[in-house]
Amino acid sequence: MRIKVINANTTASMTAKIGECARAAAGPGVTVDAVSPRQGPAAIESHTDEAFAVPGVLEEIAAGEAAGYDGYVIACFGDPGLKAARELAVGPVVGIAEAGIRVASYLGRGFSIVTTLSRSVGHTRDLLDEYGAARSCLGIHATDLAVLDLETDPVARATILRACEEALAKDGSDAIVLGCAGMADLCHDLSAQLGVSVVDGVAAATITVEGLIRMRLTTGKGNEFAYPPARLEGERLLSS
Amino acid sequence: MRIKVINANTTASMTAKIGECARAAAGPGVTVDAVSPRQGPAAIESHTDEAFAVPGVLEEIAAGEAAGYDGYVIACFGDPGLKAARELAVGPVVGIAEAGIRVASYLGRGFSIVTTLSRSVGHTRDLLDEYGAARSCLGIHATDLAVLDLETDPVARATILRACEEALAKDGSDAIVLGCAGMADLCHDLSAQLGVSVVDGVAAATITVEGLIRMRLTTGKGNEFAYPPARLEGERLLSS
Amino acid sequence: MRIKVINANTTASMTAKIGECARAAAGPGVTVDAVSPRQGPAAIESHTDEAFAVPGVLEEIAAGEAAGYDGYVIACFGDPGLKAARELAVGPVVGIAEAGIRVASYLGRGFSIVTTLSRSVGHTRDLLDEYGAARSCLGIHATDLAVLDLETDPVARATILRACEEALAKDGSDAIVLGCAGMADLCHDLSAQLGVSVVDGVAAATITVEGLIRMRLTTGKGNEFAYPPARLEGERLLSS
Amino acid sequence: MRIKVINANTTASMTAKIGECARAAAGPGVTVDAVSPRQGPAAIESHTDEAFAVPGVLEEIAAGEAAGYDGYVIACFGDPGLKAARELAVGPVVGIAEAGIRVASYLGRGFSIVTTLSRSVGHTRDLLDEYGAARSCLGIHATDLAVLDLETDPVARATILRACEEALAKDGSDAIVLGCAGMADLCHDLSAQLGVSVVDGVAAATITVEGLIRMRLTTGKGNEFAYPPARLEGERLLSS
Amino acid sequence: MRIKVINANTTASMTAKIGECARAAAGPGVTVDAVSPRQGPAAIESHTDEAFAVPGVLEEIAAGEAAGYDGYVIACFGDPGLKAARELAVGPVVGIAEAGIRVASYLGRGFSIVTTLSRSVGHTRDLLDEYGAARSCLGIHATDLAVLDLETDPVARATILRACEEALAKDGSDAIVLGCAGMADLCHDLSAQLGVSVVDGVAAATITVEGLIRMRLTTGKGNEFAYPPARLEGERLLSS
Amino acid sequence: MRIKVINANTTASMTAKIGECARAAAGPGVTVDAVSPRQGPAAIESHTDEAFAVPGVLEEIAAGEAAGYDGYVIACFGDPGLKAARELAVGPVVGIAEAGIRVASYLGRGFSIVTTLSRSVGHTRDLLDEYGAARSCLGIHATDLAVLDLETDPVARATILRACEEALAKDGSDAIVLGCAGMADLCHDLSAQLGVSVVDGVAAATITVEGLIRMRLTTGKGNEFAYPPARLEGERLLSS
Repeated sequence: MRIKVINANTTASMTAKIGECARAAAGPGVTVDAVSPRQGPAAIESHTDEAFAVPGVLEEIAAGEAAGYDGYVIACFGDPGLKAARELAVGPVVGIAEAGIRVASYLGRGFSIVTTLSRSVGHTRDLLDEYGAARSCLGIHATDLAVLDLETDPVARATILRACEEALAKDGSDAIVLGCAGMADLCHDLSAQLGVSVVDGVAAATITVEGLIRMRLTTGKGNEFAYPPARLEGERLLSS
Repeated sequence: MRIKVINANTTASMTAKIGECARAAAGPGVTVDAVSPRQGPAAIESHTDEAFAVPGVLEEIAAGEAAGYDGYVIACFGDPGLKAARELAVGPVVGIAEAGIRVASYLGRGFSIVTTLSRSVGHTRDLLDEYGAARSCLGIHATDLAVLDLETDPVARATILRACEEALAKDGSDAIVLGCAGMADLCHDLSAQLGVSVVDGVAAATITVEGLIRMRLTTGKGNEFAYPPARLEGERLLSS
Repeated sequence: MRIKVINANTTASMTAKIGECARAAAGPGVTVDAVSPRQGPAAIESHTDEAFAVPGVLEEIAAGEAAGYDGYVIACFGDPGLKAARELAVGPVVGIAEAGIRVASYLGRGFSIVTTLSRSVGHTRDLLDEYGAARSCLGIHATDLAVLDLETDPVARATILRACEEALAKDGSDAIVLGCAGMADLCHDLSAQLGVSVVDGVAAATITVEGLIRMRLTTGKGNEFAYPPARLEGERLLSS
Repeated sequence: MRIKVINANTTASMTAKIGECARAAAGPGVTVDAVSPRQGPAAIESHTDEAFAVPGVLEEIAAGEAAGYDGYVIACFGDPGLKAARELAVGPVVGIAEAGIRVASYLGRGFSIVTTLSRSVGHTRDLLDEYGAARSCLGIHATDLAVLDLETDPVARATILRACEEALAKDGSDAIVLGCAGMADLCHDLSAQLGVSVVDGVAAATITVEGLIRMRLTTGKGNEFAYPPARLEGERLLSS
Repeated sequence: MRIKVINANTTASMTAKIGECARAAAGPGVTVDAVSPRQGPAAIESHTDEAFAVPGVLEEIAAGEAAGYDGYVIACFGDPGLKAARELAVGPVVGIAEAGIRVASYLGRGFSIVTTLSRSVGHTRDLLDEYGAARSCLGIHATDLAVLDLETDPVARATILRACEEALAKDGSDAIVLGCAGMADLCHDLSAQLGVSVVDGVAAATITVEGLIRMRLTTGKGNEFAYPPARLEGERLLSS
Repeated sequence: MRIKVINANTTASMTAKIGECARAAAGPGVTVDAVSPRQGPAAIESHTDEAFAVPGVLEEIAAGEAAGYDGYVIACFGDPGLKAARELAVGPVVGIAEAGIRVASYLGRGFSIVTTLSRSVGHTRDLLDEYGAARSCLGIHATDLAVLDLETDPVARATILRACEEALAKDGSDAIVLGCAGMADLCHDLSAQLGVSVVDGVAAATITVEGLIRMRLTTGKGNEFAYPPARLEGERLLSS
């Protein structure tokens, strides 16, 4: 079984970290390849960033189909390009926000999300509504760390720990969901320090897509998620 | 890793079938034991059936804790006793309705549920609301097969196939969710015949709980799902 | 007219108190009998408690049918076993949470609930959603009194009064709903001290079921709430 | 105990019928007076009718307060003027739509409404949303009988019976709610013919307000429903 | 193009101010006439006030139809009589709450409402629900200024400015909506002082109705908003 | 006042038609320029099409800012790139779906949408939820015309007329919303033939953005819709 994990931004160190976390989560016999788009923003911190990241993500899906991957993870907490990816792929595609949120829903009454920039909170609320989890999310807590600070800032880890503690105290939540792929490596340490379950969306999505493949379940191709009109190859937007 | 799958009714042939389907879904290195309560209804077809099934389910959870299981599946599409089970178990507990519904949510715009008795449709609607999936479920289709007919009725399989076909045509759905643990063995054949993903909650819940255990995620124990007051052992309702 | 009020726990002093409050609320010509199950938890403070209480509640309904009662009140603020009871009874069955909540909806824009343990707040939220009253409930306030403290703790009354005052100030609510059958006797005193309407679910449910009987209204028996399959008597779970 | 039932239109024959039904529902020791406004539309069949009916309804509330009534019923299925009436009255005020809808919520999974003109269906939907009952109402069925046809049309009764039968068959509902005060007298016959509970809002509201008075519960007067600014008497819109 | 703006209360200074603001917003070639009802409350500060204001508003609509106006604005933040007005008018009718709320929805994630009396907050919440904007409104802030204080109180302006500042800080909102027609003249100054968009419903509704007329769009007259039954003229409630 | 209308696809004939309709709707003194992206799909008929269209739309916004436009319309019924465009523009940005939907909300109880491909219906539902209009939309009717058929197919117009007629009959709606920018030119003829209001989103959005500019209202820039991190210029994704 081969799963392709697509970091939606172009920062190589983050792609490497995401790949490690995904591989650590995957079961025996599962090959995980982590990639990032050839072109696009170095971090996804705005609606505009997301818009410019998506074509590169979709090219990676198209390339993945040519290479015969069984399934895909989109590793950015905004789930950029997820619906379009489902049109292009034969196998299942899972976003880390949707997997993180759904996995956390098994852990009790509700969870808190700890994330980076406060300007992303609105988009997270939209996703919670779309995934039917608005009632389960008891709070979204922005640290106002920039995404790439997570790669370099020595105090980022402490800032996140403190935000988790505050979230648990204020929300009375049963688990924490980490709201950025760049936090994936902090998951187990945070959980140990906080004494509650901490959900990393990268691990959650990898395990979810592995499970879907094992159950031979994939996106319905008869309606909204059918392959898009062939036009796009002729328009050179998507290589066939 | 040891997972205990609890068929909530006392019909041994169904327990055996559920165990087979769960074992087929589980990954390498996972031991799956399927049991049913010592006492309780032979089928769960009413709110009353469910009420009388739950104490036996919880006794199996308590016994499972004594035996050191890592996680549990409650294998009845009404998810009977799920919240109480989460109080009693240290590891994760997953119901087949919640897992079937959440897994199907990854497969497109929406799914249809094909189930047994029409009197159970209201309860399924309640679960969809609770799990935030009311918008994703495009229809619930009762066959009015009794639960135990699935064990014995030679035409049950054809009835279910026809209900699935009608559901897909009417709802324009991307997948089918089977609304009874007793249909677990039909999943792959139905999927092949229908040409769409068919979700068996038993497999979905087994794979989900296996994933939660692998990620070391469990129910939050600091609030609503803390172990219940010690009273119950003194009251001989629950063996310590 | 004969109404059976079922205290869902087995604490006799609480059953006696509930019976008194129900009788005080009932109109002329109404006989109210208050009972508790033969077996079950002494208090209902967790999902597990509720699960073990329900079979005893249902046995009381079945016995009540044999004895010809016209209607039933389930006197525990979690409304345990309510849907199953509606299957078993010919006449109407009303829970004290649903009646308390619906009665309070006539009193203004919104109400606050004052209850016992904070671990029960999630369940109360589920009931508010189910009864369509999430928008009318402006706050749920747990005192963290245990249920049986209400029988014995001399300062319980003061704790509850203070919680009501805080609820009114914080929520700007028009009424208080008492979130435990064990608080039934405090209702009129609290109302006098607070200067707002205080709703006791025991009184509300008794008066509601009396009204339903007077209007000759009862549960629809043609669908979800039809009598359960006869199996249960054969299985000795329910005496016929 | 004295309850004033206000037919919101000025048709005397309907007021008489409503009074009879309310008195038949009320308990022993309850005096029910049925009135209609001095001026206003003969039937309420549009938003405009309702707007012109409300001042007369409120004058009846103000007169009722001067006369010392304990509570009020507004007997028109649109609940016209209900919130304003709650400002003006010391005791409880109940509308027949809200009472009919809430009473029907005790009777199973859901109910159907059978009403007069299809142009009123939108307003009924607004009320269902406001009262938290959108999920419980499984269908609204307009007969396109005019309100005053109910007083005179010999085939009106048969039309309504047929609409009820169709509603039950189509919606799978557990009860019927009659969507017009002018249908109050048909309630028991319809119930007998249909074999399900039929809810007349006039009876439901009368019994509900009687119960509220017995429990000494009334509208919260500290916020939205405080008595309106004294201006209105000076403006001769409302007699003090 | 002729638009009639109806101040729902009878305070002439407020009508004049509203007229000025509406004229300032209207495009070239648009005649705006501002009127108030012949009779009714001097301010609308309660449900009762609103009830007594509506007949006068509707008489102005009826008179406007006779005079051939192309469209109407109802200039009171409770949108009193809006649905009835839509029955009576051939052209479009727009309320200042609905227009203010919808216009603000184009300005970002969410807005705050700054209003007069806290007793009106509940009604505003009802309108937000009805207009589908509950999620976009991040807070409602009452100043507890009476409506007519806005005409006379020298410190009213400072109170409103402070409430706007507090709303922006607390809610993190993208715009302010002024919750009273009497604040219309403050809009541009407040916007300059606050540095965010401030929406005056009078301007928003005037521009909206102008746009609807330009697009030749009007209320659907085939269903709920058909002209009411002719009865009303015979009943002398509405002049034909 | 200068408004830039961006057809999100690259089909010149459609851009010309959209420009004409927008200019016809705009008021005196308003300059409307209609453009399409330099590169991107010829039609937007899938999530993938939309993803590849958005960068070109945003480049047009950035170019528009350099050229000093006062506001923007995004002329594709999926509102592609709307949130990102709001980050990039100083003035208001309006999508034709949001404007069409909100404008139709003024016209009665509810509207029907008539659109092109059935695979786009799910996305339209998402927009209705996001814009708070799920309750107002009484039906979405796909004709299964491809977008470019609207440019060339001689029977397209008849197909759309028939779909509108069916929608009105089935939904009982008060207006029709055209679900594709390519239908803009049909609006007035359809309205005349159907006898109800037909809303063209291009006209609705043009008039809406004109109104916002006149009121000096624009997107809040202090939170989610602040200009994106300067990174993007350095990354050559967006010219400064």
